Amino acid sequence: MSAAYTRIRHDRGEDEVAIEEPLEIRVGGRPLAVTMRTPGHDEELTLGFLYGEGLIDGPRDAGPTVDFAANTIEVEGPLAREPGERRFYTTSSCGVCGKGAIEEVTVLSAPVPEGPTIPRALVARLPDLLEQPTFEHTGGLHAAGLFEPNGRLILAREDVGRHNALDKVVGRALLDGMIPLGERVLCVSGRLSFELVQKAAVAGGPILVGVGAPSSLAVSLADERGITLCGFARRGRVNVYTHPERIGGE
Amino acid sequence: MSAAYTRIRHDRGEDEVAIEEPLEIRVGGRPLAVTMRTPGHDEELTLGFLYGEGLIDGPRDAGPTVDFAANTIEVEGPLAREPGERRFYTTSSCGVCGKGAIEEVTVLSAPVPEGPTIPRALVARLPDLLEQPTFEHTGGLHAAGLFEPNGRLILAREDVGRHNALDKVVGRALLDGMIPLGERVLCVSGRLSFELVQKAAVAGGPILVGVGAPSSLAVSLADERGITLCGFARRGRVNVYTHPERIGGE
Repeated sequence: MSAAYTRIRHDRGEDEVAIEEPLEIRVGGRPLAVTMRTPGHDEELTLGFLYGEGLIDGPRDAGPTVDFAANTIEVEGPLAREPGERRFYTTSSCGVCGKGAIEEVTVLSAPVPEGPTIPRALVARLPDLLEQPTFEHTGGLHAAGLFEPNGRLILAREDVGRHNALDKVVGRALLDGMIPLGERVLCVSGRLSFELVQKAAVAGGPILVGVGAPSSLAVSLADERGITLCGFARRGRVNVYTHPERIGGE
Repeated sequence: MSAAYTRIRHDRGEDEVAIEEPLEIRVGGRPLAVTMRTPGHDEELTLGFLYGEGLIDGPRDAGPTVDFAANTIEVEGPLAREPGERRFYTTSSCGVCGKGAIEEVTVLSAPVPEGPTIPRALVARLPDLLEQPTFEHTGGLHAAGLFEPNGRLILAREDVGRHNALDKVVGRALLDGMIPLGERVLCVSGRLSFELVQKAAVAGGPILVGVGAPSSLAVSLADERGITLCGFARRGRVNVYTHPERIGGE
Protein backbone atom coordinates (compact mmCIF):
# COMPACT_ATOMS: atom_id res chain seq x y z
CA MET A 1 0.00 0.00 0.00
CA SER A 2 1.11 3.56 -0.75
CA ALA A 3 2.18 5.92 1.99
CA ALA A 4 -0.51 8.46 2.86
CA TYR A 5 1.93 11.22 3.76
CA THR A 6 5.37 12.55 2.92
CA ARG A 7 7.85 14.82 4.67
CA ILE A 8 8.03 18.40 3.37
CA ARG A 9 10.31 21.17 4.54
CA HIS A 10 8.98 24.58 5.53
CA ASP A 11 10.78 27.67 6.73
CA ARG A 12 10.71 26.65 10.39
CA GLY A 13 11.36 22.92 10.08
CA GLU A 14 9.67 19.95 8.52
CA ASP A 15 6.11 18.63 8.37
CA GLU A 16 4.46 15.41 7.42
CA VAL A 17 2.05 16.37 4.67
CA ALA A 18 -0.86 14.34 3.29
CA ILE A 19 -0.26 13.09 -0.24
CA GLU A 20 -2.69 14.28 -2.90
CA GLU A 21 -2.51 12.86 -6.44
CA PRO A 22 -5.00 12.65 -9.31
CA LEU A 23 -6.70 9.35 -10.11
CA GLU A 24 -8.27 8.81 -13.51
CA ILE A 25 -11.21 6.41 -13.48
CA ARG A 26 -11.79 4.59 -16.78
CA VAL A 27 -14.77 2.38 -17.51
CA GLY A 28 -14.60 -0.06 -20.39
CA GLY A 29 -11.50 1.76 -21.66
CA ARG A 30 -13.08 5.24 -21.67
CA PRO A 31 -12.04 7.97 -19.21
CA LEU A 32 -14.96 8.85 -16.93
CA ALA A 33 -13.60 11.14 -14.21
CA VAL A 34 -10.46 12.46 -12.55
CA THR A 35 -10.52 12.82 -8.79
CA MET A 36 -7.85 14.23 -6.49
CA ARG A 37 -7.21 11.66 -3.78
CA THR A 38 -4.70 10.22 -1.33
CA PRO A 39 -3.22 7.12 -3.01
CA GLY A 40 -4.13 3.74 -1.56
CA HIS A 41 -7.38 1.77 -1.61
CA ASP A 42 -7.98 3.01 -5.17
CA GLU A 43 -10.21 0.06 -6.03
CA GLU A 44 -12.42 0.78 -3.02
CA LEU A 45 -12.52 4.49 -3.83
CA THR A 46 -13.51 3.83 -7.42
CA LEU A 47 -16.20 1.26 -6.69
CA GLY A 48 -17.59 3.32 -3.82
CA PHE A 49 -17.75 6.43 -6.00
CA LEU A 50 -19.46 4.66 -8.90
CA TYR A 51 -21.91 2.93 -6.56
CA GLY A 52 -22.81 6.15 -4.77
CA GLU A 53 -23.54 7.80 -8.10
CA GLY A 54 -25.76 4.90 -9.14
CA LEU A 55 -23.44 4.01 -12.02
CA ILE A 56 -22.88 0.38 -10.93
CA ASP A 57 -25.18 -2.02 -9.08
CA GLY A 58 -22.57 -4.11 -7.28
CA PRO A 59 -18.87 -4.95 -7.11
CA ARG A 60 -16.92 -5.24 -10.36
CA ASP A 61 -13.44 -5.96 -11.51
CA ALA A 62 -11.36 -2.84 -11.03
CA GLY A 63 -7.62 -2.62 -11.10
CA PRO A 64 -4.75 -0.45 -12.25
CA THR A 65 -4.04 -0.41 -15.95
CA VAL A 66 -0.53 -0.87 -17.32
CA ASP A 67 1.38 -0.01 -14.16
CA PHE A 68 0.76 0.98 -10.59
CA ALA A 69 2.40 4.38 -10.87
CA ALA A 70 0.01 5.51 -13.59
CA ASN A 71 -2.71 6.83 -11.26
CA THR A 72 -5.24 5.23 -13.57
CA ILE A 73 -7.80 2.60 -12.69
CA GLU A 74 -9.79 0.56 -15.18
CA VAL A 75 -13.29 -0.67 -14.30
CA GLU A 76 -15.13 -3.39 -16.18
CA GLY A 77 -17.94 -1.93 -18.32
CA PRO A 78 -20.66 -1.19 -19.18
CA LEU A 79 -22.22 1.16 -16.64
CA ALA A 80 -25.66 0.55 -15.17
CA ARG A 81 -26.78 3.98 -16.33
CA GLU A 82 -25.27 6.73 -18.43
CA PRO A 83 -23.22 9.26 -16.45
CA GLY A 84 -24.06 11.92 -19.02
CA GLU A 85 -27.61 12.16 -17.74
CA ARG A 86 -27.95 15.55 -16.18
CA ARG A 87 -28.34 15.56 -12.44
CA PHE A 88 -31.34 17.12 -10.70
CA TYR A 89 -33.78 16.91 -13.56
CA THR A 90 -35.78 20.07 -14.05
CA THR A 91 -39.11 20.65 -15.71
CA SER A 92 -40.37 23.84 -17.23
CA SER A 93 -42.54 24.47 -14.20
CA CYS A 94 -39.81 24.07 -11.60
CA GLY A 95 -36.23 25.24 -11.29
CA VAL A 96 -33.30 23.23 -10.04
CA CYS A 97 -34.02 22.72 -6.40
CA GLY A 98 -33.23 20.72 -3.32
CA LYS A 99 -36.45 18.78 -3.83
CA GLY A 100 -35.23 17.61 -7.24
CA ALA A 101 -31.88 16.59 -5.77
CA ILE A 102 -33.64 14.59 -3.04
CA GLU A 103 -35.88 12.91 -5.61
CA GLU A 104 -32.87 11.84 -7.62
CA VAL A 105 -31.33 10.14 -4.59
CA THR A 106 -34.68 8.45 -3.96
CA VAL A 107 -34.51 6.89 -7.42
CA LEU A 108 -30.99 5.60 -6.71
CA SER A 109 -31.60 4.15 -3.27
CA ALA A 110 -33.83 1.53 -1.67
CA PRO A 111 -35.35 2.43 1.71
CA VAL A 112 -32.72 2.13 4.45
CA PRO A 113 -33.07 -0.84 6.80
CA GLU A 114 -34.73 -0.43 10.17
CA GLY A 115 -31.28 -0.50 11.73
CA PRO A 116 -30.15 -0.78 15.32
CA THR A 117 -30.83 1.32 18.39
CA ILE A 118 -27.66 2.85 19.80
CA PRO A 119 -27.12 4.55 23.15
CA ARG A 120 -26.58 8.28 22.79
CA ALA A 121 -23.36 8.15 24.81
CA LEU A 122 -21.87 5.64 22.37
CA VAL A 123 -22.85 7.72 19.32
CA ALA A 124 -21.12 10.73 20.88
CA ARG A 125 -17.94 8.67 21.34
CA LEU A 126 -17.77 7.17 17.83
CA PRO A 127 -15.45 9.85 16.40
CA ASP A 128 -12.96 9.08 19.19
CA LEU A 129 -13.08 5.42 18.18
CA LEU A 130 -12.39 6.31 14.55
CA GLU A 131 -8.71 5.45 14.29
CA GLN A 132 -6.93 8.06 12.24
CA PRO A 133 -3.24 7.22 12.21
CA THR A 134 -2.24 9.66 9.48
CA PHE A 135 -4.21 12.60 10.82
CA GLU A 136 -1.96 12.62 13.87
CA HIS A 137 0.97 13.06 11.54
CA THR A 138 -0.44 15.58 9.10
CA GLY A 139 -3.65 17.16 10.35
CA GLY A 140 -4.57 17.02 6.70
CA LEU A 141 -6.76 13.98 6.18
CA HIS A 142 -10.46 13.34 6.50
CA ALA A 143 -11.60 10.01 7.87
CA ALA A 144 -14.66 7.80 7.54
CA GLY A 145 -15.44 4.60 9.39
CA LEU A 146 -17.93 1.79 9.62
CA PHE A 147 -18.94 0.53 13.06
CA GLU A 148 -20.91 -2.33 14.57
CA PRO A 149 -23.81 -1.09 16.71
CA ASN A 150 -21.78 -2.00 19.82
CA GLY A 151 -19.07 0.49 18.82
CA ARG A 152 -16.58 -1.99 17.34
CA LEU A 153 -14.75 -0.43 14.40
CA ILE A 154 -15.09 -2.61 11.28
CA LEU A 155 -12.97 -0.45 8.98
CA ALA A 156 -11.67 3.11 8.63
CA ARG A 157 -10.25 5.01 5.66
CA GLU A 158 -8.54 8.38 5.28
CA ASP A 159 -8.22 10.78 2.34
CA VAL A 160 -7.52 14.43 1.60
CA GLY A 161 -11.06 14.52 0.20
CA ARG A 162 -13.86 13.87 2.65
CA HIS A 163 -16.09 12.39 -0.03
CA ASN A 164 -13.27 10.05 -0.98
CA ALA A 165 -12.86 8.75 2.56
CA LEU A 166 -16.53 7.72 2.64
CA ASP A 167 -16.33 6.31 -0.91
CA LYS A 168 -13.44 4.06 0.19
CA VAL A 169 -15.49 2.74 3.12
CA VAL A 170 -18.52 2.07 0.91
CA GLY A 171 -16.32 0.47 -1.75
CA ARG A 172 -14.77 -1.87 0.82
CA ALA A 173 -18.21 -2.74 2.19
CA LEU A 174 -19.38 -3.46 -1.36
CA LEU A 175 -16.44 -5.80 -2.01
CA ASP A 176 -17.11 -7.60 1.29
CA GLY A 177 -20.85 -8.08 0.67
CA MET A 178 -21.89 -5.66 3.45
CA ILE A 179 -24.25 -3.51 1.32
CA PRO A 180 -26.94 -2.58 2.32
CA LEU A 181 -25.22 -1.62 5.55
CA GLY A 182 -28.16 -2.69 7.69
CA GLU A 183 -27.20 -2.71 11.36
CA ARG A 184 -23.91 -0.88 10.80
CA VAL A 185 -23.18 2.77 11.55
CA LEU A 186 -21.24 5.26 9.39
CA CYS A 187 -19.11 7.98 10.99
CA VAL A 188 -17.17 10.83 9.34
CA SER A 189 -14.62 13.25 10.74
CA GLY A 190 -16.02 16.44 9.21
CA ARG A 191 -19.18 18.28 8.28
CA LEU A 192 -22.32 16.63 6.99
CA SER A 193 -23.12 17.75 3.45
CA PHE A 194 -25.86 16.62 1.09
CA GLU A 195 -23.47 14.39 -0.83
CA LEU A 196 -22.32 12.48 2.26
CA VAL A 197 -25.94 11.74 3.18
CA GLN A 198 -26.53 10.69 -0.44
CA LYS A 199 -23.68 8.17 -0.20
CA ALA A 200 -25.07 6.81 3.08
CA ALA A 201 -28.55 6.54 1.55
CA VAL A 202 -27.41 4.65 -1.54
CA ALA A 203 -25.34 2.30 0.65
CA GLY A 204 -28.39 1.59 2.82
CA GLY A 205 -26.86 3.05 5.97
CA PRO A 206 -29.47 3.81 8.64
CA ILE A 207 -27.25 6.01 10.86
CA LEU A 208 -24.70 8.67 9.84
CA VAL A 209 -22.64 10.43 12.52
CA GLY A 210 -20.38 13.45 11.94
CA VAL A 211 -18.07 15.56 14.06
CA GLY A 212 -19.17 18.73 12.29
CA ALA A 213 -22.30 20.64 11.40
CA PRO A 214 -24.94 19.41 8.95
CA SER A 215 -26.22 21.52 6.07
CA SER A 216 -29.89 22.25 5.54
CA LEU A 217 -30.16 19.92 2.54
CA ALA A 218 -28.31 17.14 4.36
CA VAL A 219 -30.98 17.30 7.07
CA SER A 220 -33.81 17.32 4.50
CA LEU A 221 -32.40 14.34 2.62
CA ALA A 222 -31.78 12.32 5.80
CA ASP A 223 -35.32 13.05 6.96
CA GLU A 224 -36.81 12.00 3.61
CA ARG A 225 -34.74 8.81 3.30
CA GLY A 226 -35.32 7.65 6.89
CA ILE A 227 -31.70 8.14 7.99
CA THR A 228 -30.73 9.08 11.55
CA LEU A 229 -28.41 12.08 11.11
CA CYS A 230 -26.19 12.97 14.09
CA GLY A 231 -23.96 16.07 14.09
CA PHE A 232 -21.47 17.80 16.39
CA ALA A 233 -20.51 14.44 17.93
CA ARG A 234 -17.71 15.54 20.23
CA ARG A 235 -16.84 16.01 23.87
CA GLY A 236 -19.48 13.50 24.93
CA ARG A 237 -22.34 15.32 23.22
CA VAL A 238 -24.25 14.86 19.96
CA ASN A 239 -27.27 16.45 18.26
CA VAL A 240 -29.72 14.16 16.49
CA TYR A 241 -31.35 16.01 13.60
CA THR A 242 -33.56 13.32 12.06
CA HIS A 243 -35.14 9.99 13.02
CA PRO A 244 -34.06 9.97 16.68
CA GLU A 245 -35.95 6.69 17.21
CA ARG A 246 -32.69 4.81 16.68
CA ILE A 247 -30.94 6.68 19.49
CA GLY A 248 -31.42 5.28 22.97
CA GLY A 249 -31.21 6.98 26.35
CA GLU A 250 -28.04 7.89 28.16
CA MET B 1 -29.43 38.73 -0.57
CA SER B 2 -30.48 35.26 0.58
CA ALA B 3 -30.06 34.10 4.14
CA ALA B 4 -27.04 31.83 4.60
CA TYR B 5 -28.61 29.80 7.38
CA THR B 6 -31.92 28.56 8.67
CA ARG B 7 -33.18 27.27 12.01
CA ILE B 8 -33.60 23.51 12.30
CA ARG B 9 -34.88 21.53 15.26
CA HIS B 10 -32.97 18.60 16.70
CA ASP B 11 -33.79 16.32 19.59
CA ARG B 12 -32.20 18.60 22.20
CA GLY B 13 -33.25 21.99 20.91
CA GLU B 14 -32.68 24.06 17.83
CA ASP B 15 -29.65 24.92 15.66
CA GLU B 16 -28.88 27.42 13.00
CA VAL B 17 -27.84 25.35 10.04
CA ALA B 18 -26.01 26.49 6.89
CA ILE B 19 -28.20 26.44 3.81
CA GLU B 20 -27.08 24.17 0.97
CA GLU B 21 -28.91 24.25 -2.37
CA PRO B 22 -27.96 23.22 -5.92
CA LEU B 23 -27.07 25.86 -8.48
CA GLU B 24 -27.20 25.02 -12.17
CA ILE B 25 -24.76 27.00 -14.28
CA ARG B 26 -25.83 27.47 -17.91
CA VAL B 27 -23.68 29.01 -20.60
CA GLY B 28 -25.29 30.25 -23.77
CA GLY B 29 -28.46 28.37 -22.82
CA ARG B 30 -26.75 25.01 -22.28
CA PRO B 31 -26.37 23.42 -18.83
CA LEU B 32 -22.69 23.17 -17.89
CA ALA B 33 -22.52 22.14 -14.24
CA VAL B 34 -24.50 21.76 -11.04
CA THR B 35 -22.78 22.78 -7.82
CA MET B 36 -24.05 22.52 -4.26
CA ARG B 37 -23.67 25.92 -2.65
CA THR B 38 -24.95 28.35 -0.04
CA PRO B 39 -27.28 30.76 -1.90
CA GLY B 40 -26.12 34.35 -2.29
CA HIS B 41 -23.39 35.88 -4.48
CA ASP B 42 -24.31 33.41 -7.21
CA GLU B 43 -22.93 35.65 -9.95
CA GLU B 44 -19.58 35.85 -8.18
CA LEU B 45 -19.53 32.12 -7.56
CA THR B 46 -20.27 31.36 -11.19
CA LEU B 47 -17.75 33.78 -12.68
CA GLY B 48 -15.07 32.77 -10.18
CA PHE B 49 -15.62 29.10 -10.93
CA LEU B 50 -15.51 29.56 -14.71
CA TYR B 51 -12.44 31.79 -14.46
CA GLY B 52 -10.57 29.35 -12.22
CA GLU B 53 -11.23 26.56 -14.70
CA GLY B 54 -9.95 28.69 -17.57
CA LEU B 55 -13.37 28.69 -19.25
CA ILE B 56 -13.70 32.50 -19.39
CA ASP B 57 -11.04 35.21 -19.74
CA GLY B 58 -12.77 38.03 -17.87
CA PRO B 59 -16.09 39.18 -16.43
CA ARG B 60 -19.28 38.45 -18.34
CA ASP B 61 -22.95 39.01 -18.03
CA ALA B 62 -24.35 36.46 -15.63
CA GLY B 63 -27.73 36.51 -13.99
CA PRO B 64 -30.64 34.34 -12.96
CA THR B 65 -32.89 33.06 -15.69
CA VAL B 66 -36.67 33.28 -15.46
CA ASP B 67 -36.91 33.81 -11.71
CA PHE B 68 -34.71 34.12 -8.67
CA ALA B 69 -36.03 31.01 -6.96
CA ALA B 70 -34.95 28.74 -9.80
CA ASN B 71 -31.39 28.12 -8.59
CA THR B 72 -30.25 28.58 -12.17
CA ILE B 73 -27.79 31.12 -13.50
CA GLU B 74 -27.27 31.96 -17.15
CA VAL B 75 -23.85 33.11 -18.38
CA GLU B 76 -23.26 34.81 -21.72
CA GLY B 77 -21.52 32.44 -24.17
CA PRO B 78 -19.41 31.21 -25.82
CA LEU B 79 -16.72 29.81 -23.54
CA ALA B 80 -13.05 30.62 -24.06
CA ARG B 81 -12.27 26.90 -24.29
CA GLU B 82 -14.29 23.73 -24.37
CA PRO B 83 -15.06 22.28 -20.95
CA GLY B 84 -15.22 18.80 -22.44
CA GLU B 85 -11.45 18.69 -22.84
CA ARG B 86 -10.17 16.08 -20.50
CA ARG B 87 -8.19 17.37 -17.56
CA PHE B 88 -4.61 16.28 -16.87
CA TYR B 89 -3.70 15.25 -20.37
CA THR B 90 -1.87 11.94 -20.50
CA THR B 91 0.41 10.48 -23.12
CA SER B 92 1.15 6.83 -23.74
CA SER B 93 4.50 7.19 -22.00
CA CYS B 94 3.16 8.76 -18.83
CA GLY B 95 0.19 8.11 -16.59
CA VAL B 96 -2.05 10.68 -15.03
CA CYS B 97 0.15 12.40 -12.51
CA GLY B 98 0.63 15.43 -10.35
CA LYS B 99 3.13 16.76 -12.89
CA GLY B 100 0.44 16.74 -15.57
CA ALA B 101 -1.99 18.51 -13.27
CA ILE B 102 0.59 21.19 -12.51
CA GLU B 103 1.34 21.64 -16.21
CA GLU B 104 -2.34 22.18 -16.93
CA VAL B 105 -2.53 24.98 -14.36
CA THR B 106 0.59 26.48 -15.91
CA VAL B 107 -1.21 26.70 -19.25
CA LEU B 108 -4.14 28.47 -17.59
CA SER B 109 -2.23 31.00 -15.54
CA ALA B 110 0.24 33.81 -16.12
CA PRO B 111 3.16 34.05 -13.68
CA VAL B 112 1.98 35.54 -10.38
CA PRO B 113 3.07 39.12 -9.66
CA GLU B 114 6.07 39.79 -7.44
CA GLY B 115 3.65 40.73 -4.69
CA PRO B 116 4.17 42.37 -1.33
CA THR B 117 6.32 41.47 1.66
CA ILE B 118 4.24 40.81 4.76
CA PRO B 119 5.34 40.46 8.35
CA ARG B 120 5.02 36.91 9.63
CA ALA B 121 3.03 38.02 12.66
CA LEU B 122 0.40 39.62 10.41
CA VAL B 123 0.12 36.52 8.22
CA ALA B 124 -0.48 34.42 11.32
CA ARG B 125 -3.30 36.78 12.35
CA LEU B 126 -5.13 36.93 9.00
CA PRO B 127 -7.61 34.12 9.79
CA ASP B 128 -8.68 36.04 12.90
CA LEU B 129 -9.32 39.07 10.71
CA LEU B 130 -11.47 37.02 8.33
CA GLU B 131 -14.94 38.02 9.40
CA GLN B 132 -17.20 35.03 9.41
CA PRO B 133 -20.58 36.10 10.71
CA THR B 134 -22.46 32.95 9.75
CA PHE B 135 -19.87 30.51 11.06
CA GLU B 136 -20.55 31.78 14.53
CA HIS B 137 -24.16 30.80 14.04
CA THR B 138 -23.77 27.45 12.33
CA GLY B 139 -20.21 26.16 12.53
CA GLY B 140 -20.97 24.90 9.05
CA LEU B 141 -19.50 27.37 6.59
CA HIS B 142 -16.09 27.75 5.02
CA ALA B 143 -14.75 31.25 4.48
CA ALA B 144 -12.35 32.93 2.08
CA GLY B 145 -11.12 36.50 2.14
CA LEU B 146 -9.04 38.99 0.21
CA PHE B 147 -6.73 41.31 2.17
CA GLU B 148 -4.56 44.33 1.53
CA PRO B 149 -0.92 43.69 2.48
CA ASN B 150 -1.46 45.83 5.60
CA GLY B 151 -4.11 43.39 6.85
CA ARG B 152 -7.18 45.38 5.83
CA LEU B 153 -9.99 43.03 4.76
CA ILE B 154 -11.25 43.90 1.26
CA LEU B 155 -13.96 41.25 1.05
CA ALA B 156 -14.96 37.93 2.59
CA ARG B 157 -17.37 35.25 1.47
CA GLU B 158 -18.78 32.10 3.09
CA ASP B 159 -20.14 28.86 1.67
CA VAL B 160 -20.80 25.25 2.64
CA GLY B 161 -18.20 24.35 0.00
CA ARG B 162 -14.68 25.60 0.56
CA HIS B 163 -13.98 25.83 -3.16
CA ASN B 164 -17.13 27.90 -3.55
CA ALA B 165 -16.06 30.43 -0.92
CA LEU B 166 -12.83 31.09 -2.81
CA ASP B 167 -14.67 31.14 -6.16
CA LYS B 168 -16.96 33.87 -4.78
CA VAL B 169 -13.98 35.97 -3.74
CA VAL B 170 -12.29 35.55 -7.13
CA GLY B 171 -15.56 36.28 -8.94
CA ARG B 172 -16.03 39.52 -6.97
CA ALA B 173 -12.43 40.51 -7.66
CA LEU B 174 -12.98 39.80 -11.35
CA LEU B 175 -16.09 41.98 -11.44
CA ASP B 176 -14.22 44.79 -9.66
CA GLY B 177 -11.18 44.69 -11.97
CA MET B 178 -8.83 43.36 -9.27
CA ILE B 179 -7.46 40.39 -11.29
CA PRO B 180 -4.52 39.67 -11.31
CA LEU B 181 -4.58 40.07 -7.55
CA GLY B 182 -1.09 41.59 -7.43
CA GLU B 183 -0.38 42.99 -3.99
CA ARG B 184 -3.40 41.39 -2.38
CA VAL B 185 -3.42 38.31 -0.13
CA LEU B 186 -5.88 35.39 -0.16
CA CYS B 187 -6.85 33.61 3.06
CA VAL B 188 -9.06 30.53 3.55
CA SER B 189 -10.54 29.00 6.69
CA GLY B 190 -9.67 25.38 5.95
CA ARG B 191 -7.08 23.08 4.47
CA LEU B 192 -4.97 23.87 1.44
CA SER B 193 -5.70 21.49 -1.43
CA PHE B 194 -4.37 21.46 -4.97
CA GLU B 195 -7.54 23.05 -6.30
CA LEU B 196 -7.39 26.03 -3.94
CA VAL B 197 -3.81 26.74 -5.02
CA GLN B 198 -4.96 26.38 -8.64
CA LYS B 199 -7.62 29.05 -8.10
CA ALA B 200 -5.06 31.38 -6.49
CA ALA B 201 -2.64 30.77 -9.37
CA VAL B 202 -5.17 31.52 -12.09
CA ALA B 203 -6.28 34.67 -10.23
CA GLY B 204 -2.65 35.84 -10.04
CA GLY B 205 -2.54 35.75 -6.24
CA PRO B 206 1.04 35.75 -4.90
CA ILE B 207 0.22 34.69 -1.31
CA LEU B 208 -2.29 32.08 -0.08
CA VAL B 209 -2.81 31.58 3.66
CA GLY B 210 -4.81 28.76 5.24
CA VAL B 211 -5.79 27.76 8.75
CA GLY B 212 -5.30 24.08 7.95
CA ALA B 213 -2.72 21.72 6.53
CA PRO B 214 -1.54 21.75 2.92
CA SER B 215 -1.47 18.65 0.75
CA SER B 216 1.65 17.46 -1.04
CA LEU B 217 0.39 18.53 -4.45
CA ALA B 218 -0.71 21.93 -3.15
CA VAL B 219 2.88 22.54 -2.03
CA SER B 220 4.29 21.35 -5.38
CA LEU B 221 1.95 23.57 -7.38
CA ALA B 222 2.61 26.64 -5.22
CA ASP B 223 6.35 26.07 -5.55
CA GLU B 224 6.12 25.71 -9.33
CA ARG B 225 3.86 28.76 -9.83
CA GLY B 226 5.83 31.06 -7.54
CA ILE B 227 3.14 31.31 -4.87
CA THR B 228 3.90 31.79 -1.16
CA LEU B 229 1.89 29.06 0.57
CA CYS B 230 1.28 29.48 4.31
CA GLY B 231 -0.45 26.78 6.40
CA PHE B 232 -1.52 26.21 10.00
CA ALA B 233 -2.00 29.97 10.48
CA ARG B 234 -3.41 30.03 14.01
CA ARG B 235 -2.56 30.95 17.57
CA GLY B 236 0.04 33.45 16.39
CA ARG B 237 2.02 30.90 14.37
CA VAL B 238 2.27 29.98 10.69
CA ASN B 239 4.36 27.64 8.53
CA VAL B 240 5.60 28.92 5.17
CA TYR B 241 5.95 26.03 2.74
CA THR B 242 7.02 27.79 -0.45
CA HIS B 243 8.57 31.10 -1.55
CA PRO B 244 9.20 32.52 1.93
CA GLU B 245 10.85 35.59 0.36
CA ARG B 246 7.52 37.45 0.68
CA ILE B 247 7.35 36.85 4.44
CA GLY B 248 9.20 39.36 6.58
CA GLY B 249 10.58 38.99 10.09
CA GLU B 250 8.61 39.19 13.28
